[in-house]
Amino acid sequence: MFITRRECFNAAHKLFKPEWSDARNYEVFGACSNPNWHGHNYVLFVTVKGSPNVETGFVMNLKKLSQLIKTHVTDKVDHKNLNLDVPFMKDILPSAENVAKAFWQQLSAPIEKEGCTLHCIRLQETENNSVEYFGE
Amino acid sequence: MFITRRECFNAAHKLFKPEWSDARNYEVFGACSNPNWHGHNYVLFVTVKGSPNVETGFVMNLKKLSQLIKTHVTDKVDHKNLNLDVPFMKDILPSAENVAKAFWQQLSAPIEKEGCTLHCIRLQETENNSVEYFGE
Amino acid sequence: MFITRRECFNAAHKLFKPEWSDARNYEVFGACSNPNWHGHNYVLFVTVKGSPNVETGFVMNLKKLSQLIKTHVTDKVDHKNLNLDVPFMKDILPSAENVAKAFWQQLSAPIEKEGCTLHCIRLQETENNSVEYFGE
Amino acid sequence: MFITRRECFNAAHKLFKPEWSDARNYEVFGACSNPNWHGHNYVLFVTVKGSPNVETGFVMNLKKLSQLIKTHVTDKVDHKNLNLDVPFMKDILPSAENVAKAFWQQLSAPIEKEGCTLHCIRLQETENNSVEYFGE
Amino acid sequence: MFITRRECFNAAHKLFKPEWSDARNYEVFGACSNPNWHGHNYVLFVTVKGSPNVETGFVMNLKKLSQLIKTHVTDKVDHKNLNLDVPFMKDILPSAENVAKAFWQQLSAPIEKEGCTLHCIRLQETENNSVEYFGE
Amino acid sequence: MFITRRECFNAAHKLFKPEWSDARNYEVFGACSNPNWHGHNYVLFVTVKGSPNVETGFVMNLKKLSQLIKTHVTDKVDHKNLNLDVPFMKDILPSAENVAKAFWQQLSAPIEKEGCTLHCIRLQETENNSVEYFGE
Repeated sequence: MFITRRECFNAAHKLFKPEWSDARNYEVFGACSNPNWHGHNYVLFVTVKGSPNVETGFVMNLKKLSQLIKTHVTDKVDHKNLNLDVPFMKDILPSAENVAKAFWQQLSAPIEKEGCTLHCIRLQETENNSVEYFGE
Repeated sequence: MFITRRECFNAAHKLFKPEWSDARNYEVFGACSNPNWHGHNYVLFVTVKGSPNVETGFVMNLKKLSQLIKTHVTDKVDHKNLNLDVPFMKDILPSAENVAKAFWQQLSAPIEKEGCTLHCIRLQETENNSVEYFGE
Repeated sequence: MFITRRECFNAAHKLFKPEWSDARNYEVFGACSNPNWHGHNYVLFVTVKGSPNVETGFVMNLKKLSQLIKTHVTDKVDHKNLNLDVPFMKDILPSAENVAKAFWQQLSAPIEKEGCTLHCIRLQETENNSVEYFGE
Repeated sequence: MFITRRECFNAAHKLFKPEWSDARNYEVFGACSNPNWHGHNYVLFVTVKGSPNVETGFVMNLKKLSQLIKTHVTDKVDHKNLNLDVPFMKDILPSAENVAKAFWQQLSAPIEKEGCTLHCIRLQETENNSVEYFGE
Repeated sequence: MFITRRECFNAAHKLFKPEWSDARNYEVFGACSNPNWHGHNYVLFVTVKGSPNVETGFVMNLKKLSQLIKTHVTDKVDHKNLNLDVPFMKDILPSAENVAKAFWQQLSAPIEKEGCTLHCIRLQETENNSVEYFGE
Repeated sequence: MFITRRECFNAAHKLFKPEWSDARNYEVFGACSNPNWHGHNYVLFVTVKGSPNVETGFVMNLKKLSQLIKTHVTDKVDHKNLNLDVPFMKDILPSAENVAKAFWQQLSAPIEKEGCTLHCIRLQETENNSVEYFGE
């Protein structure tokens, strides 16, 4: 049984490697390399695997899951700059893939502590672009 | 090859165990334990696995699948109270997880009879909360 | 200039007049008259008219508008029964039209106090059914 | 007869007045004042009024309208910083209200030239927040 | 008070004037002039104006409105070719504008007979393109 | 790690086997067999599997993926008739299942050439009906 919680956050970022020239950054990352940033309404789906508790019928209380996501992820990234403001993303280029991986590392242990297993991080950057990470 | 049919229904429910005090119900289930019920526009996605028929190109005619879902599920739960009105959910606490499981039991055999295999029941309770069940 | 805030809530209701027979209730209201209730994920859009403040660029701070809606409406109806639990809807048949009107009466004065004008209450009961009320 | 074209763009911004202290900026604009920016997937709806041409059945060719929006608005704001990168928004605090107004000024004349009238700029900043501007 | 019913239908069409050359058709209508047709999942929103009935709380029963739309519009256009199969669209170029007008003519009288007033036909051809018609 | 790109296209089709009578076609395919065609706003989701590149953080640049889909699929089907206009679908009955399979064959090799693996073709015909194909 899998349960999924959706959470939204708004953040700025750029895909830009300081060790590259602006021209090379533009060549590889296109408009996403704009030095003055751009941003997204990110939509995050966190899927947890487990067995429903016999008493409560819950794999995990979805309010609890929402709180874990807020504490470990969205409170730290909402209305922030993913390149500058987020300690757990320091030195990580914030491609959707890398952001999803970083969120996995934030959430895996706290969900384990609740007796469940993190199954998937899905991160939607735009209505057309999304990534899914299922751990190693 | 997998095909998925979406069906919607509107129902009332509460997460409330009569053997518990109101206080304990509230502690565990929060606002969902309101004795006077609340409700949802549930969205149900039924996914069926099979091989496309060589003549028709269909895994299963989606109209047929829609009819099966109506006969075995949505006609019995739409505009109903999941705690009180649904024989196949008698004595089942209607958490999304338990509802998905009960729907699986309703749909598995009829889909088998059509020569296909029920693959997944996805039930969306709100735009933020959903569950997926793939059988035992 | 108009600004619109969307808020969601989940509630139970029935369309049922106790002074009518069950048969007549069913004839007029169909499945919505189910004595044991059904429910919806209501989506509420509140539109406010005003001029952007020269300093802030805001007609009204949307966070303030969100708080007003929570205080005067959604805290009182979320996870509730619209027929039984909501003082400001006492003796009102909770058709979407009547609910929209009742919400208007809850929100009109508090929005006025902020120096703006309530323009429209839009209430979506399902993805197919919605109502709009612009006041008398 | 009204026709509406939807266009999307992703941009960074902050609500921050340099003449105010950080504390006052935070008090008025909250998390939106984050000095390091945040961003959105903006959704823009441009509505044009006119009579369908007797020959083509079009108020205006929606491809033409899309091109006008691209040329005069989205090419200038997509993957940009609304505070820093957009000449037509220089010295304008990029609240949704002010952005909508600025877009109106960009689009009104070019649509007029096509023999139609700009009727409404609707700008959705998040799924919960949007503004509409109908001109003075 | 306004109520809106959403109905969906799938149809083929082309924007092509037989009295014009293929080249001119392509010049004006682009890919929409493909002689072999293309098609859409049209989404139709019918808005009706009226006062809620004191007894029922309804402007018009939305099930009744849905039936009227089915009888007078969607049964006649769903899974059809708008250029070839629809008597009430004979000799009308099926631009979204013209389709909306033709639907208005189909629905205005039947809605009047129910004691209400047709207020708006909104027709969405794609997620990016839509038209609204409010009558003459 | 999986990345998914969404692309939309509008096409006409019919489910109709010329070797069958009209009556049998109608019996099996219902309204979808209308000889004069119908159509859809198809939504295509292409999912690619791979490891994020250490330098770019990308499994594959989503703009590159979008271009591949355009070149090999959507440029060939958008505003077309799936039964008549698409060389790679010649003699294939355009059920959603068969269309998904045909798209897989178009996209598998070009994605392989980019060092990634095509994982899933999801094709949504309407908001209620969709299919997923994961290859043989």
